[in-house]
Amino acid sequence: MQTAAAPPTCPADVESECAHGSGEWEGEFFPGIPKIKYEGPSSKNHLAYKWYNAEEEILGKKMKDWMRFSVAFWHTFRGTGGDPFGAPTKMWPWEDGTDSLAMAKKRMRANFEFINKLGVDKWCFHDRDIAPAGKTIKETNANLDEVVALAKELQGTKIRPLWGTAQLFHHPRFMHGAATSSELGVYAYSAAQVKKTMEVTHYLGGENYVFWGGREGYQSLLNTDMERELDHMARFFEAAVAYKKKIGFNGTLLIEPKPQEPTKHQYDWDAATATNFLRKYGLIDEFKLNIECNHATLSGHSCHHELETSRINGVLGNIDANTGDPQVGWDTDQFMMDVGEATLVMLSVIKNGGLAPGGFNFDAKLRRESTDVEDLFIAHIAGMDTLARGLRNAAKLIEDGSLADLVRRRYQSFDSELGAQIEAGKADFELLEKKAMVWGEPTVASAKQELAEMIFQAAL
Amino acid sequence: MQTAAAPPTCPADVESECAHGSGEWEGEFFPGIPKIKYEGPSSKNHLAYKWYNAEEEILGKKMKDWMRFSVAFWHTFRGTGGDPFGAPTKMWPWEDGTDSLAMAKKRMRANFEFINKLGVDKWCFHDRDIAPAGKTIKETNANLDEVVALAKELQGTKIRPLWGTAQLFHHPRFMHGAATSSELGVYAYSAAQVKKTMEVTHYLGGENYVFWGGREGYQSLLNTDMERELDHMARFFEAAVAYKKKIGFNGTLLIEPKPQEPTKHQYDWDAATATNFLRKYGLIDEFKLNIECNHATLSGHSCHHELETSRINGVLGNIDANTGDPQVGWDTDQFMMDVGEATLVMLSVIKNGGLAPGGFNFDAKLRRESTDVEDLFIAHIAGMDTLARGLRNAAKLIEDGSLADLVRRRYQSFDSELGAQIEAGKADFELLEKKAMVWGEPTVASAKQELAEMIFQAAL
Amino acid sequence: MQTAAAPPTCPADVESECAHGSGEWEGEFFPGIPKIKYEGPSSKNHLAYKWYNAEEEILGKKMKDWMRFSVAFWHTFRGTGGDPFGAPTKMWPWEDGTDSLAMAKKRMRANFEFINKLGVDKWCFHDRDIAPAGKTIKETNANLDEVVALAKELQGTKIRPLWGTAQLFHHPRFMHGAATSSELGVYAYSAAQVKKTMEVTHYLGGENYVFWGGREGYQSLLNTDMERELDHMARFFEAAVAYKKKIGFNGTLLIEPKPQEPTKHQYDWDAATATNFLRKYGLIDEFKLNIECNHATLSGHSCHHELETSRINGVLGNIDANTGDPQVGWDTDQFMMDVGEATLVMLSVIKNGGLAPGGFNFDAKLRRESTDVEDLFIAHIAGMDTLARGLRNAAKLIEDGSLADLVRRRYQSFDSELGAQIEAGKADFELLEKKAMVWGEPTVASAKQELAEMIFQAAL
Amino acid sequence: MQTAAAPPTCPADVESECAHGSGEWEGEFFPGIPKIKYEGPSSKNHLAYKWYNAEEEILGKKMKDWMRFSVAFWHTFRGTGGDPFGAPTKMWPWEDGTDSLAMAKKRMRANFEFINKLGVDKWCFHDRDIAPAGKTIKETNANLDEVVALAKELQGTKIRPLWGTAQLFHHPRFMHGAATSSELGVYAYSAAQVKKTMEVTHYLGGENYVFWGGREGYQSLLNTDMERELDHMARFFEAAVAYKKKIGFNGTLLIEPKPQEPTKHQYDWDAATATNFLRKYGLIDEFKLNIECNHATLSGHSCHHELETSRINGVLGNIDANTGDPQVGWDTDQFMMDVGEATLVMLSVIKNGGLAPGGFNFDAKLRRESTDVEDLFIAHIAGMDTLARGLRNAAKLIEDGSLADLVRRRYQSFDSELGAQIEAGKADFELLEKKAMVWGEPTVASAKQELAEMIFQAAL
Repeated sequence: MQTAAAPPTCPADVESECAHGSGEWEGEFFPGIPKIKYEGPSSKNHLAYKWYNAEEEILGKKMKDWMRFSVAFWHTFRGTGGDPFGAPTKMWPWEDGTDSLAMAKKRMRANFEFINKLGVDKWCFHDRDIAPAGKTIKETNANLDEVVALAKELQGTKIRPLWGTAQLFHHPRFMHGAATSSELGVYAYSAAQVKKTMEVTHYLGGENYVFWGGREGYQSLLNTDMERELDHMARFFEAAVAYKKKIGFNGTLLIEPKPQEPTKHQYDWDAATATNFLRKYGLIDEFKLNIECNHATLSGHSCHHELETSRINGVLGNIDANTGDPQVGWDTDQFMMDVGEATLVMLSVIKNGGLAPGGFNFDAKLRRESTDVEDLFIAHIAGMDTLARGLRNAAKLIEDGSLADLVRRRYQSFDSELGAQIEAGKADFELLEKKAMVWGEPTVASAKQELAEMIFQAAL
Repeated sequence: MQTAAAPPTCPADVESECAHGSGEWEGEFFPGIPKIKYEGPSSKNHLAYKWYNAEEEILGKKMKDWMRFSVAFWHTFRGTGGDPFGAPTKMWPWEDGTDSLAMAKKRMRANFEFINKLGVDKWCFHDRDIAPAGKTIKETNANLDEVVALAKELQGTKIRPLWGTAQLFHHPRFMHGAATSSELGVYAYSAAQVKKTMEVTHYLGGENYVFWGGREGYQSLLNTDMERELDHMARFFEAAVAYKKKIGFNGTLLIEPKPQEPTKHQYDWDAATATNFLRKYGLIDEFKLNIECNHATLSGHSCHHELETSRINGVLGNIDANTGDPQVGWDTDQFMMDVGEATLVMLSVIKNGGLAPGGFNFDAKLRRESTDVEDLFIAHIAGMDTLARGLRNAAKLIEDGSLADLVRRRYQSFDSELGAQIEAGKADFELLEKKAMVWGEPTVASAKQELAEMIFQAAL
Repeated sequence: MQTAAAPPTCPADVESECAHGSGEWEGEFFPGIPKIKYEGPSSKNHLAYKWYNAEEEILGKKMKDWMRFSVAFWHTFRGTGGDPFGAPTKMWPWEDGTDSLAMAKKRMRANFEFINKLGVDKWCFHDRDIAPAGKTIKETNANLDEVVALAKELQGTKIRPLWGTAQLFHHPRFMHGAATSSELGVYAYSAAQVKKTMEVTHYLGGENYVFWGGREGYQSLLNTDMERELDHMARFFEAAVAYKKKIGFNGTLLIEPKPQEPTKHQYDWDAATATNFLRKYGLIDEFKLNIECNHATLSGHSCHHELETSRINGVLGNIDANTGDPQVGWDTDQFMMDVGEATLVMLSVIKNGGLAPGGFNFDAKLRRESTDVEDLFIAHIAGMDTLARGLRNAAKLIEDGSLADLVRRRYQSFDSELGAQIEAGKADFELLEKKAMVWGEPTVASAKQELAEMIFQAAL
Repeated sequence: MQTAAAPPTCPADVESECAHGSGEWEGEFFPGIPKIKYEGPSSKNHLAYKWYNAEEEILGKKMKDWMRFSVAFWHTFRGTGGDPFGAPTKMWPWEDGTDSLAMAKKRMRANFEFINKLGVDKWCFHDRDIAPAGKTIKETNANLDEVVALAKELQGTKIRPLWGTAQLFHHPRFMHGAATSSELGVYAYSAAQVKKTMEVTHYLGGENYVFWGGREGYQSLLNTDMERELDHMARFFEAAVAYKKKIGFNGTLLIEPKPQEPTKHQYDWDAATATNFLRKYGLIDEFKLNIECNHATLSGHSCHHELETSRINGVLGNIDANTGDPQVGWDTDQFMMDVGEATLVMLSVIKNGGLAPGGFNFDAKLRRESTDVEDLFIAHIAGMDTLARGLRNAAKLIEDGSLADLVRRRYQSFDSELGAQIEAGKADFELLEKKAMVWGEPTVASAKQELAEMIFQAAL
């Protein structure tokens, strides 16, 4: 996830431009935009689904139940277009330039209008994005409660958070990390903040709770005690598990791996690293992973690899549906637009039997240069359609069966008596040596990679 | 590790050039090269040590005992200079262009002359590099036994293998992997080969045994059953542990992580990934890691990071001392020549209390274009001197103490009563919230990274 | 391009396996394989085209004239599956394990049967791949002439080389480069070799001649005089231009950029670098570029970027149609299987008005693990189909017009009087300042990137 | 260069913390910090030079004349520690939280106290960093004039700008670029801004003027007319040249290459790309390059490579002295702390005969977590010392001569009659072929890379 939730301030020299965001608001936030409908692949309507048909059944399950799409409050409603070299470019018309409670509530109304028009029933949030901080923890918590109460009302009976999460990286107090900060006071502060965010996630009916350790890592090993920091992180997670149980929150706890940025090295580098950490500290049964495709590629893996690694380790819990630029070395959080990639993602999801209680969170943001309100809809529609098309393709591949068959046949020599012995851990080196000596040179078949690729591409 | 041990054949059109490697040989292999001595930093002699002084004590231990340097047979005696775009460039004068048993023995003599002239007492080998394959496993094993008997004799009382390892990637039978091959026959063959190599390593007094899974990985997930392959790998390692115990081999088993190349993805991607695998399959107490610096940087980490990650996980066992090119995306296996990097490496080694029974293996090769016999010496001397200078610098830093002090002071807020509670797992979220509310905004000190870097650089 | 054309020798210990490549041969080389036909997208036949329909017209030109597909002799007939860590895996049945003239001729017959069955009419070759080297340049040239005479005959009236090229990187004599070697003797040798290869390319009716400077670069700046080497390269190219004119060869000279590998830095890093070199030495009107997609991504650019950069600089001459792995840092030369990428490639080709006299050369090789003869066909068919599908998609986008329209509208403020003045170089800073002061804050429209991506994806 | 000059606002919830930056100020800005003196390598004083001794002569020139160090106003006085995931961390004590004219002047006084205490005599600035924007261009220019007048006074007789530059990337109006924006109004605005900044640079006695095209590039080729944008950029540069001449500004115009970030692709990708652009549009004699080491490595080159490429093309004009993290894919602008890298940089500078009228600008910033005022001094001192040590090492290498000798000997075969003919462009293919046939197989010597590395390392 997660660009910083900077308050959308105007640069000093663009007062006039900012004026268009007067913040005064009544009625609809997205007046020209209808409820988005499915019109099928031949539609040229930018504001319609061509592939996502929520109620349609694919492989025995409704599309919406496979996808469990969620809107990320931070990108969609707090994304400003700011980047390391530039000021915000986006002041949505309903913004008044403040970070007030009133503005927070108005924004929350916009959020639910957006969700309803898009036709999804989940959302994700950072505590600090939905409500302004106060001068003390108490005041901050009170602000959060007030906005959460409104969100609860606006959720109605159908909408729920896919997950909540605490924002522990934007404020300067977190500059050395949160649970891994060198300052004990920050560790305590972070605990208080996670405690509260977990409570409100529970209150809102959230189904998961996410940890993204944006600054849990290091900038330089020269000034870092990595071992002590990792121990602190484990203690923090243990306390989170204990608190979850105490309050009766049954949601899944999710760790979101990312290799680096803003730190040089983040402790949850990739799925394997996070899993190793969980195993080392005896936490493997208490957490799953939230895999983000852009984070996967930044760590040197394909998204498909990270999903499969998580699935095989039994910890695939949720997907942050976005993509990066293959030639760029930082997190771009673009909407996933590649049908091939989406098909691979959905193959993993289907193998996993779906993601529930997890789902797909659109941790994706408009490009800095996309500044029309309708761009928010266009981007989400295109992202949802891409994954929906991926689901349709994956189903086609599974129904066709020839790809799975190619894989099965590759390993058929293990579907034998000795294969069974090996897989049961009963074939020692002496037995194997005897066999190898009797058999002579083994035959080795073609891996048929190009054929596998041909079959895959034909399904797109 | 490990470029392929291709037989050093001449391209068809360079017959004349190859002639200079007549292979006929008596007496010294390195006639103009004296035993390499320590002459101190002011020496301009390319064939002398300027920093490595084997018997000198640093931090209470002789330099040679900190370093435990080893010569890698494959690079030094089987490296041909071939690359994906070019034929071999190196036909050492003693080579006769064959892969015969007689040649293997002559080469082994050259190896020990080299080791003795360099003044080290360890070496590392692949089974297939020291002895030619035969037509059957039996014949191959007999060839190996014959060369090993000679090696044992040439070792004398002082020289021992740092480790041995089986070469399971060069022959086409391993094209889909060894323990993770899709072919059961290859799995069995690999078991037979590891069994034999472990036996001869034990026989030669080897102190460790290494697994580098060069083709244990995949080229494409489309045609791969990753879960089944990983299970097979675990079964294979379990059988290796059992066999080690059965024959009374007390050496450490080492896994050598590498992210990729030749495969798109190797299962032992990095230290964290290998450790996760070992934990998942209950093998964490039976293995340590052999960290290679060039592999570290290919996986997106600094070498120092991989060493520290291994150390913290209790699995730092050995170092493959080489370096890569920071702008190049494949394994170049260059001799480590960067004094700063060497100092960081030695800081980790000192924190680890040394590496024994592991050590430093020179898994480094001459550039393809370095074709003089003396280049073998120059490269090893420079590599050893670089690490020796790193040791001297690390000792200087430790004796000075100001860098360690800077780190200790960063975390001093945890050296408190609440810090102790947190570190003991006794501070729950409610207690921490209470403290955070009482304390108000935490103070956060400068991380002093530039000062840390200034102190570090001053020691170089 | 271009893995090394190593003679396909058997590893010493796989004699039995190699036996299957007996080399004795009569009649068809690909007996079970029919002439490949177009069967349309619904076909499940692996040995049929689903998208490539040679005679079908798209945007006013036959598909075959847009594509001008060519088979790369080196990968398809000299690719062995060897890699830096492994021996060859492929001994096609017609190979006899020698590099003899007889074998060279038999192989050439296989090449033309392959070309004919595939239904293309172009091929590309390295001199050293089609004919064995002799002991002297004269003997080598005589060998080449003999094979070339056969190729001329087998070409018949329809088939011609898309281009020829000299192989100046495999033999150890080229270890420091060819035109940029530090050895004058190698410079002269390279001139002799290029002279001859240009002659035979001309004789065979080749339409282009390619320079890929595999070792024209450096491994380390410490031992390199880069300025002198670049000057030598320029002199060499000037001599090539002069010789081309002298013999009346009207083909296009093409430089093929690649950033690195086998060298740390290759002088023709990317399209911009090669163009800068050509401009600096006054050669810009004498050369065009051969853009390879895998080289593009290795240099940090998308393939589309390199094609557009070449096109804009007026030097887009040919395409090496392959792709790399986005997570891998070396040249994998895979067949292009990504329909999105192929569509972008074809958009550039269409904008360029086609590539003739250049075309698409399949500088792509089977994966090392793909060892069936039919894999050669499957890979080429899938690669051709992918590009053909890209052409169909690109045509769809162009006919639809909405993407081009979106781009045109973005710049419409320049379709004004002042815009014309600016573009004519007639608007100085004072005029522009005056306008800026009058206008006040400029309005800046959304870049609509997500909409552009939505439109693009809909065409796939 | 160049993080954004965001106004250093406090996050809404850190009011108390921000209070410490009251902005009320009299007297010294850096009260405890003395004028920094040279104390030699044995000094442990963090606030002293150990290697940089301004007046000391090295290779016939004073150290200060080799180095021509400059302080970058933006990083040192406008750097806030903000990053894409976090709010500012730095509110220097003299800051009052506003972007007022009064604050701008106070800040300028701090700048000159810093420069004087550091003992350098150059500085670099962006227009928008030294003075606040107004509501109109006129007002903005008036603000700038007021601050510039003060700077002129504070410069005294000794201090001058190394260069000035216009900040054309932070304000949202530049979101599509400046000279390459799709909006004509922005093109005009940019011209007005460059005009003014060039005027004040000239007025202050600046010796160079820099163009860094932060947003001159694209995010996606799908919505971009690259050819039209590049033409616009050329027109803009032509107008800048004309205006420079008109006002009698004799400073060098410098382009600063960077491959990407914030854009996916920046048009001045690297030295070769920028040079190609200059040649294409006939601007090669009017511009030089400002090479930044961190940009070099982001483009896939070593810093040394980019310096040498610039030098060989005759366009090495200035160096932005910083470094990046070798494992990180974005611009970190760290102070250069690597002695080996600094030595290579200085070897290029010496070969270039120095950089004047260019110099070394410290385009480097404190880490976000370095928040003490003294960290500003520590970082600059360490950075200057590193380069000074590099100069001393480079001089040592040059005086020793063995490295240069090794290089000279490698090419000695060209120091012959035929070599001279080749280098004069008088050796055609026929002559060369004749020679090659007479000579037979060329001999090829070892490249001695490890020896070169040994010699280099010995000088560090």
